[in-house]
Amino acid sequence: MKNVVEEERMRGINIAEVRDWAQEGADLALHYFNNVARRRKADHTWVTQADVEVEQLLRERITARYPDHGIMGEEQGVGAIDREFVWSLDPIDGTGAFVSGLPLWCVSIGLMRWGQPYLGVIYLPILSDCYWADAEGPAYRNDEEIHVLSAETIDGNDWIAVSSYAHRTFTISFPGKARSLSSVATDLCYVARGSALGALLGRANLWDIAAGVAILRAAGGEMRGLSGAELVMSDLLDGRKLPEPVIAAAPSMIDTLRGYIVPKVVGV
Amino acid sequence: MKNVVEEERMRGINIAEVRDWAQEGADLALHYFNNVARRRKADHTWVTQADVEVEQLLRERITARYPDHGIMGEEQGVGAIDREFVWSLDPIDGTGAFVSGLPLWCVSIGLMRWGQPYLGVIYLPILSDCYWADAEGPAYRNDEEIHVLSAETIDGNDWIAVSSYAHRTFTISFPGKARSLSSVATDLCYVARGSALGALLGRANLWDIAAGVAILRAAGGEMRGLSGAELVMSDLLDGRKLPEPVIAAAPSMIDTLRGYIVPKVVGV
Repeated sequence: MKNVVEEERMRGINIAEVRDWAQEGADLALHYFNNVARRRKADHTWVTQADVEVEQLLRERITARYPDHGIMGEEQGVGAIDREFVWSLDPIDGTGAFVSGLPLWCVSIGLMRWGQPYLGVIYLPILSDCYWADAEGPAYRNDEEIHVLSAETIDGNDWIAVSSYAHRTFTISFPGKARSLSSVATDLCYVARGSALGALLGRANLWDIAAGVAILRAAGGEMRGLSGAELVMSDLLDGRKLPEPVIAAAPSMIDTLRGYIVPKVVGV
Repeated sequence: MKNVVEEERMRGINIAEVRDWAQEGADLALHYFNNVARRRKADHTWVTQADVEVEQLLRERITARYPDHGIMGEEQGVGAIDREFVWSLDPIDGTGAFVSGLPLWCVSIGLMRWGQPYLGVIYLPILSDCYWADAEGPAYRNDEEIHVLSAETIDGNDWIAVSSYAHRTFTISFPGKARSLSSVATDLCYVARGSALGALLGRANLWDIAAGVAILRAAGGEMRGLSGAELVMSDLLDGRKLPEPVIAAAPSMIDTLRGYIVPKVVGV
């Protein structure tokens, strides 16, 4: 057994298989999508049900294939994180979108190695789009290589992805468009593919960003705190949130975008 | 010929056929979606090409079936509008979303009678969702009857649809979420189905809203100017834009939502 695991490690992770798992998880989630009448004060049971089922499936697949890896996920929380490899799972990122019948929710599977994003797979079932990057890079949308966008000047058609609470928490003077896609993982995909110029993310958890940061970096992008501080990903392994909002973009764009965003003072 | 047309008029419009046209148009547009590498300073030729092809198709279908009706559309402009029936077409509403690889663009087909919204069909091909209402109502998403949402209190999961320029043009204190879906017609669909509590639309053209207002009203909703003024739809037949931003919602919610939105003063 030990030898098989060692051999696996040397061969690296089979990312095609991880992509299959994401798709399998999404198929499960799709049974619940639009399948229940919208209730405003949702008893969120059925969403949780979809979330739990998908995470359970992913955990089973990972454990069967990589028994010595750790797993942390949105639903079942933080398991053994003192491992070389720790998977970080968001079974349905964008549950708000999911509940609202909106299309941009996704299954997000990240793998951390020694506390750093190592590879990532994000699958958006409604668009049949799979974003992924393995440890060697580059990043892909399906079979097409993707890269972040860098711009000398910003015009009215350039856009950034922002949280759906941004109107309450930030003053944004970005001269282009601001769109809220309702999923942090999806935000990172649209930055990685060079569609959005950047993304402003709220205080996310590791499972929201583990896969997305691996893909973003493989596509030439980076993340930094709104204050300018570096992001210490390994700090998030125990389940704590990012200490501040972050900007994701091409490295050359981060300071430009920071300049357009001012947190609102809350309270007295 | 005259008798056939008269008979048609008495029988009303065959909305199942209009739904087929919308789907046919969407199939055409899908050939272009994600099919061209993203260029930042887009030569928008290929989008225009998709737009023009879809509008041409819709015009041919309408003219063959209802030769005495007028047509006005985004691409070919305003034709004969001094008719009892005038179709108002947006072949691809949400071209910004379309270009960005985002899913919520749609084909919007509205029919005005004596200057008032008479029926509407809006098809979102990525979700395979068809929103529609004929002259008798009610409104539907596919085969499911839909209704606008009314709420006594607003919580953090309630949401409104806003334009992707809203961060620059409005100060919004709505206590829930604000999402920019990138298509005015789609905004109206999500209000009509009771997913969004309301929508704040910029100064739209008739082709953006003709179908959506028919569906919204059939679902129990209404539109009003941000100033509180009534909306005179017939004024828009000649191609001019709405005189001010508008709120779409359940009638009981419109004033509440107006209270959360303040236009920003532009210039000195």
